[in-house]
Amino acid sequence: MIPHRAIHAVRGSVRCWRHRAVFKVSREASAVGACRRFSVRVRASGMEEILARVVVPLPSYETRDKSPPPPESNSLEFMHFYRSLDKVEKAEFLTKLSRDHGVDHKGVSELAVKLLDTQQRDLATILQVEDRLRYSLTPRYKQLLCHISRVEGGVKFLVDLRADVLELIASKVSESPQIRDLSGTLKSLLSEWFSVGLLRLERITWQSPCEILQKISQYEAVHPVRNWTDLKRRVGPYRRCYAFTHAAMPGEPLVVLHVALTEEISNNIQSIVREFATLDSEEDVNKINSAIFYSISSTQAGLQGVELGNYLIKKVVRELQSEFPHMAQFSSLSPIPGFSVWLQGLLNQYRKDNRGTDLLSEHEWKEVEQATDSSPGSQATEALRKLISSGEWMRSERLSGVLEPVLMRLCAWYLYGEKRRGYALNPVANFHLQNGATMWRLNWRADTSPRGVANSCGIMVNYRYFLNETSKNSALYLQNKVVTASEQVLGLVSQFQKNSKL
Amino acid sequence: MIPHRAIHAVRGSVRCWRHRAVFKVSREASAVGACRRFSVRVRASGMEEILARVVVPLPSYETRDKSPPPPESNSLEFMHFYRSLDKVEKAEFLTKLSRDHGVDHKGVSELAVKLLDTQQRDLATILQVEDRLRYSLTPRYKQLLCHISRVEGGVKFLVDLRADVLELIASKVSESPQIRDLSGTLKSLLSEWFSVGLLRLERITWQSPCEILQKISQYEAVHPVRNWTDLKRRVGPYRRCYAFTHAAMPGEPLVVLHVALTEEISNNIQSIVREFATLDSEEDVNKINSAIFYSISSTQAGLQGVELGNYLIKKVVRELQSEFPHMAQFSSLSPIPGFSVWLQGLLNQYRKDNRGTDLLSEHEWKEVEQATDSSPGSQATEALRKLISSGEWMRSERLSGVLEPVLMRLCAWYLYGEKRRGYALNPVANFHLQNGATMWRLNWRADTSPRGVANSCGIMVNYRYFLNETSKNSALYLQNKVVTASEQVLGLVSQFQKNSKL
Amino acid sequence: MIPHRAIHAVRGSVRCWRHRAVFKVSREASAVGACRRFSVRVRASGMEEILARVVVPLPSYETRDKSPPPPESNSLEFMHFYRSLDKVEKAEFLTKLSRDHGVDHKGVSELAVKLLDTQQRDLATILQVEDRLRYSLTPRYKQLLCHISRVEGGVKFLVDLRADVLELIASKVSESPQIRDLSGTLKSLLSEWFSVGLLRLERITWQSPCEILQKISQYEAVHPVRNWTDLKRRVGPYRRCYAFTHAAMPGEPLVVLHVALTEEISNNIQSIVREFATLDSEEDVNKINSAIFYSISSTQAGLQGVELGNYLIKKVVRELQSEFPHMAQFSSLSPIPGFSVWLQGLLNQYRKDNRGTDLLSEHEWKEVEQATDSSPGSQATEALRKLISSGEWMRSERLSGVLEPVLMRLCAWYLYGEKRRGYALNPVANFHLQNGATMWRLNWRADTSPRGVANSCGIMVNYRYFLNETSKNSALYLQNKVVTASEQVLGLVSQFQKNSKL
Amino acid sequence: MIPHRAIHAVRGSVRCWRHRAVFKVSREASAVGACRRFSVRVRASGMEEILARVVVPLPSYETRDKSPPPPESNSLEFMHFYRSLDKVEKAEFLTKLSRDHGVDHKGVSELAVKLLDTQQRDLATILQVEDRLRYSLTPRYKQLLCHISRVEGGVKFLVDLRADVLELIASKVSESPQIRDLSGTLKSLLSEWFSVGLLRLERITWQSPCEILQKISQYEAVHPVRNWTDLKRRVGPYRRCYAFTHAAMPGEPLVVLHVALTEEISNNIQSIVREFATLDSEEDVNKINSAIFYSISSTQAGLQGVELGNYLIKKVVRELQSEFPHMAQFSSLSPIPGFSVWLQGLLNQYRKDNRGTDLLSEHEWKEVEQATDSSPGSQATEALRKLISSGEWMRSERLSGVLEPVLMRLCAWYLYGEKRRGYALNPVANFHLQNGATMWRLNWRADTSPRGVANSCGIMVNYRYFLNETSKNSALYLQNKVVTASEQVLGLVSQFQKNSKL
Repeated sequence: MIPHRAIHAVRGSVRCWRHRAVFKVSREASAVGACRRFSVRVRASGMEEILARVVVPLPSYETRDKSPPPPESNSLEFMHFYRSLDKVEKAEFLTKLSRDHGVDHKGVSELAVKLLDTQQRDLATILQVEDRLRYSLTPRYKQLLCHISRVEGGVKFLVDLRADVLELIASKVSESPQIRDLSGTLKSLLSEWFSVGLLRLERITWQSPCEILQKISQYEAVHPVRNWTDLKRRVGPYRRCYAFTHAAMPGEPLVVLHVALTEEISNNIQSIVREFATLDSEEDVNKINSAIFYSISSTQAGLQGVELGNYLIKKVVRELQSEFPHMAQFSSLSPIPGFSVWLQGLLNQYRKDNRGTDLLSEHEWKEVEQATDSSPGSQATEALRKLISSGEWMRSERLSGVLEPVLMRLCAWYLYGEKRRGYALNPVANFHLQNGATMWRLNWRADTSPRGVANSCGIMVNYRYFLNETSKNSALYLQNKVVTASEQVLGLVSQFQKNSKL
Repeated sequence: MIPHRAIHAVRGSVRCWRHRAVFKVSREASAVGACRRFSVRVRASGMEEILARVVVPLPSYETRDKSPPPPESNSLEFMHFYRSLDKVEKAEFLTKLSRDHGVDHKGVSELAVKLLDTQQRDLATILQVEDRLRYSLTPRYKQLLCHISRVEGGVKFLVDLRADVLELIASKVSESPQIRDLSGTLKSLLSEWFSVGLLRLERITWQSPCEILQKISQYEAVHPVRNWTDLKRRVGPYRRCYAFTHAAMPGEPLVVLHVALTEEISNNIQSIVREFATLDSEEDVNKINSAIFYSISSTQAGLQGVELGNYLIKKVVRELQSEFPHMAQFSSLSPIPGFSVWLQGLLNQYRKDNRGTDLLSEHEWKEVEQATDSSPGSQATEALRKLISSGEWMRSERLSGVLEPVLMRLCAWYLYGEKRRGYALNPVANFHLQNGATMWRLNWRADTSPRGVANSCGIMVNYRYFLNETSKNSALYLQNKVVTASEQVLGLVSQFQKNSKL
Repeated sequence: MIPHRAIHAVRGSVRCWRHRAVFKVSREASAVGACRRFSVRVRASGMEEILARVVVPLPSYETRDKSPPPPESNSLEFMHFYRSLDKVEKAEFLTKLSRDHGVDHKGVSELAVKLLDTQQRDLATILQVEDRLRYSLTPRYKQLLCHISRVEGGVKFLVDLRADVLELIASKVSESPQIRDLSGTLKSLLSEWFSVGLLRLERITWQSPCEILQKISQYEAVHPVRNWTDLKRRVGPYRRCYAFTHAAMPGEPLVVLHVALTEEISNNIQSIVREFATLDSEEDVNKINSAIFYSISSTQAGLQGVELGNYLIKKVVRELQSEFPHMAQFSSLSPIPGFSVWLQGLLNQYRKDNRGTDLLSEHEWKEVEQATDSSPGSQATEALRKLISSGEWMRSERLSGVLEPVLMRLCAWYLYGEKRRGYALNPVANFHLQNGATMWRLNWRADTSPRGVANSCGIMVNYRYFLNETSKNSALYLQNKVVTASEQVLGLVSQFQKNSKL
Repeated sequence: MIPHRAIHAVRGSVRCWRHRAVFKVSREASAVGACRRFSVRVRASGMEEILARVVVPLPSYETRDKSPPPPESNSLEFMHFYRSLDKVEKAEFLTKLSRDHGVDHKGVSELAVKLLDTQQRDLATILQVEDRLRYSLTPRYKQLLCHISRVEGGVKFLVDLRADVLELIASKVSESPQIRDLSGTLKSLLSEWFSVGLLRLERITWQSPCEILQKISQYEAVHPVRNWTDLKRRVGPYRRCYAFTHAAMPGEPLVVLHVALTEEISNNIQSIVREFATLDSEEDVNKINSAIFYSISSTQAGLQGVELGNYLIKKVVRELQSEFPHMAQFSSLSPIPGFSVWLQGLLNQYRKDNRGTDLLSEHEWKEVEQATDSSPGSQATEALRKLISSGEWMRSERLSGVLEPVLMRLCAWYLYGEKRRGYALNPVANFHLQNGATMWRLNWRADTSPRGVANSCGIMVNYRYFLNETSKNSALYLQNKVVTASEQVLGLVSQFQKNSKL
């Protein structure tokens, strides 16, 4: 239960906003108690009462432009009430909202009948019935959501509300099928409001407000920021940090892209996030040929499905081209989350299936057996799994040498060959391939941090943006599920296929 | 025909962008000629070709989230092409766009059938078919419009496009019923993008950019700005000028509200727009009790139906309350466009119907007859009509005295009693009544400018905003068509009714 | 007399701030009268009283760092009092201030004696006496001026005060020799405060605040701005307008430079200030090779002698070089104020001296005689003078052809040869030569406006800035009075010398 | 020795900027070596050469307005050269500069003679000789300093240069008496440039640029900032942080004032800098009656003697009054640096003099003896000294109770009675008394941090600003050395006097 923040002492008695009830009590503490007991009884009825009041009925089609906007207090009351709920209550509330205040199914089906009746009539009539049908398919709560977007803080409220809805769907707590409609309605509204024309590209520097930099630091999920010097580095010379912000959510970066400006396409992340030599130096424009996108983070769970990252990369490319007209190489240096987990699952499976030998060449197995002091077969397979799980092999130069070709080709396959509904299983790969990037280069010992070794055996990958080809690649991938890859990647994949007898 | 700006000489030959054709010609002038002749032949096919290319088909319902955005060049080509058309061509183009790239009626009716088939099925199935139906009702061009909104200048382009569409509808040039769908789709998109949460309230002062002030000056339709001193006055002491702007249309005021800060509710516009005594004085906060909205102008024809003025007034009231906590009186001082025209029509009608005597009392008629040297009956009615038409009565104190009660009660009736579909016929009245204002006071000799005399016999009206009552009034008006009015106004109306035997 | 703005009615009586007296009077008008009569009596004593109060004595040398700043009210009282004075009173006041509150001459001479006594002593002692002497040479009012600079509006007040002092000196109204000390003290303080490191270069565009643009328009003395379209042109494409502003005088451009961006060095001002073809075009960077400074105006009379224009030109050159790295030509297109007046004086003198024939060749005189129907000798000289005075010759192609070589070589001489204390007599020439420019080209029919014809027979001159040579040229001119000029100018000068037998 | 940053490899050979010499060497390292050896030989001559070049002679009095400014490269060369020097070299360089390029003593004495000769002459002549004398007292280097202030970064360079000069004077390394002249000249120039009218008051918030906040954190000398949460607290609700910045040193806070907004005048610093409860709360204006200045730090050593703190406090008071019109209490909560050191010195002295008994009452001594297990007399005195030195007494409630009255009255005396040249010995006291504050309240256990206990036995003091009295107090203190104090302070002082038999 959340603290009953909404309880205010008013002249001797205590009013709990959440229950719209006033308790005569001596101390606030017991007010909360009384309030909680009361809660059980009134919750359901309270929600319904408030919903009935603030979710005004959809005006008739004829008067749809003649209905006055509801008072702003409706929106504020809804927001305030919702915020006062705990998690369970929120789930209940959202379920009620989506179930009882959605589309009028009967109205829709009547109009469907009518539409079929008018098929032989003139076009103008058909168009009008279609428009009525379209209107009748509007959930009743949509108007309220629009009105909420207009009050201060309303857009942020709706973004967070959608995050709750998504969590509710993912958790399968709610069995209401209408909850998806609510999510869809919110998504379509947010898509309009967060249309790229309304977003502002901001470059974040050490001159930016502390508040924004603190958030940039908190939101950085890919390569966590350790301290303020670290952060200063990421907005300092040879680095760029860009974010989209939105007029309705001031001071809130929506999606953040970190870029390193380098001579060559980077093959190692530590050289980017751990190197401080250049902290106070001035940029030498002659040393800048490449832009490496080494981290991109979306910050708002509620904007899932609203494409921002793609547009941010495109805008940043244009920005960089105007700053460095001769810049020719654009590439990500991306993590491969899930590779280790996938690999261990694979080894497990192979061990069970007794097919372990398929993954490595005979010579490779021998090296593994020697190094791990294990016998051939499933013991060696298990030994290999453990090696990978512990990350110990990194410390042995010999083991590392043995495993490099193995892990590289397995990783290439994981990225290139493993699919979900035809698209790349790995989400980062999927993101960049959708954007039209090429799977360009796998890099060995590219992230030697414990996290990097644990996630992807230290391997990272460059998704490279050949600007002339991104639209074509994007369409090929999205429509035909074709992954564009470099010779290095394709070579590794074919090695894997040869060895693995897949 | 617009000048063929798009023609550029390229190495001896001439290319007309509009036709995507190259003409070998000696001089540019004849290129334009050749181009125009060519135009007749290629226009239709050119439009269809370009529409077929840039208006991509709606993805299937299943892949709707998997389709890559079309290249930005599509949007740019569409915009460039459209701008190169002349007016007649634009009409043709918009007709084609709305007719050939709208809703797939067959698909819709199939889904309507399907929906009816599923009525007995489980809710989840029904919801899904509804969602498909909703999707199928999306016009094919909608996605293009969304993409246009994302390129620089795109939103402004769409606002102007809608203005063209509205003009097309009003002019009845196009007989295509689908053109209304296009207008509706644009309106609904613009409504989202110009949602109040995304608008920025700006106070315009003499410190604001010249570009904005020049626009403020140009857009002022109610009481035209004569020169820059006049403009300086309207943003100087005892005045406020506010505008909504939008991030996607920087430097463009969308709706502008001029306010005078006065001791009493003003009954005369010249004292506001012609008085320069206070130009350099400092405001004395003790003399500020009232805020008089003396001009509100929407600047974008394409945003018709997208409510902005209402929200601007509300925001400004809040702004003023925070600047002047003790301010208690909020009122417009509004023109009454159309009153003179209406009155002359009425007199004409009465003359024809021989009912002229109904409008004035016997005594009043006598005064008019004497003053105009006319005989009773239709001659006097015609004399009266001429008097009003010429505005000459203003110069005679006696006539002015005679006509004051007559014109005041006629005007009260015009504002209060004349309706169109149940709402006030006068558009300014309709605007303020929708906002919840009260029709508070008619003011004699309130606008003695030639324009004021010509439009409304010099009468102006205060619509007063009693902040506690605006929501109630607004709902009463919009839903029940009830006009809230003061005793003064109601008194004048009842005098009119008594005299006019209506 | 200024209006007695300072008179305020306070509860029946009237107080005149200026006289610090209260008058019991029935109406304000007679208060002013009473006040004026009173004025005569109290003026002198009032000034002395206020000066005695606000100009605090110089602390002793020992306690100079231990004296608290006087209360801010001292500065405000001084400012308020001064502003309430009329012109005559101001002269009297400034005279008193400089005479009675300047340097303590006795103290100075005592220290001079002491200094001479210490010449044989150790260096430390000498240095200390020198420092005391330096301190004793500080006028008593200097500290007050410093304190005034610290209150809001104080710096602007002092700039205006200096303008008054300069006018007083120029008008020779005051015979007080100390008034020059006051001017010098002010100048040295203003020089520190308006040191270039503290100035801000602002580019003025159509986006700049209206207030600034209005001032730019008002201050433009060289080629007056006719209206706002004209002004928009001067800050539009192919134009730049820069100003220095100062933190202590916000919104006040101190010196303004107008630049035209052209292909070639302009030889005509109308093509710059009258041409509107490019008003809405975009700049084509390939057409921009030259920067033409066509107007520079200082706006603050009180900053005379505080070098700003020179620095502004240098900063602007650097700004333009960074915007247009390939820009190679920097030149003024300057008016020649005073040429016509000088020429008419010359002709008058020659006529009197009967030496008119010296100025033109025989052939030229014949042409003039024919054209003006005059007889040789002084009649022709007078006819020529009248021609020039009326500007009529401009309308006759023939006369124009005859006079071109004559006026061009006379003008070259006027600019190059006429001196005042060894420096160029023409102030514009003197300004650019001090900056290190070369007298580069005289342009015929360069300013065909009535003003241009009247001032300089339509001739204008380019002072060209060869960036590598400006320091050298500046030093040569300032130290050795050498004028650097192009062959064209030198050629014209030598023609003049040949013809004129000077 | 500083790294020879100025050494650049140029085509095989190496040039050391510092020596303006080129070395043919194989590796840069040996270049530095060669350079250093070279250094010894050329240093002196190098300095002299550069000074001779960049410090141009003072123009003659007659041509003082006709001398062109030296090229900017002079200033840059001087700055670059100076920065390349190590500390010893800087001392030498500054000595040379002040000694060889200062005032022309011979010229001064000649003018002094001339001045005495003119004493009988007319005033205008006297004034002119005075002006010449004033001009001759200008050190030759002054003009260079002015020019340096005009290049980018120049003002900051001079501020740092003065810091070096002050350090040189303090360290007594240089025996040149002229070095004080250099410091004085710099101070007088800096005083003009940092005149309050040119400073900008900035409120620092969590929205301010990170760069500024980081500096605020670094500069906080009074109560060190531990981390970024701590910093956020100091700019969050119920706190204000203000700084003066200057246009010529952007992003550099010059003097920083931290303010806490409280109900009552705070008596404890931990409640201000350690309390985080209010971090996210909103300010309740009803709880804000007092402004507590709990830290003021000057950041630029080179601005010593240029009064900024005093003006900052005054401006902030005005700012706060406009934000909180009813705020009535303004006070510092100040540390008492030096009290412990002074006290231990005192105890030492008393022990030696055997007068220890004078400081405490008999009863007090007994308590001390018991608590420290020491015998009366010098042993007890020493025990007391140790107690204070270790701060252990804080942990014993009994000892703490015994020592409170003793330490409070000793501290009151230290602040009120201990003087240096008649002014308060304690620098913080001196600062606030100069500003016109009253020594208002000593607070026991006001700073219980180790630092607070070590410095001042945990005692802090409020200097209170009664706004009506500050000018009077300031003048009394500065001119008559009168300290204004409250009854509490005076009471403690008289207790001290009674006990101490002073």
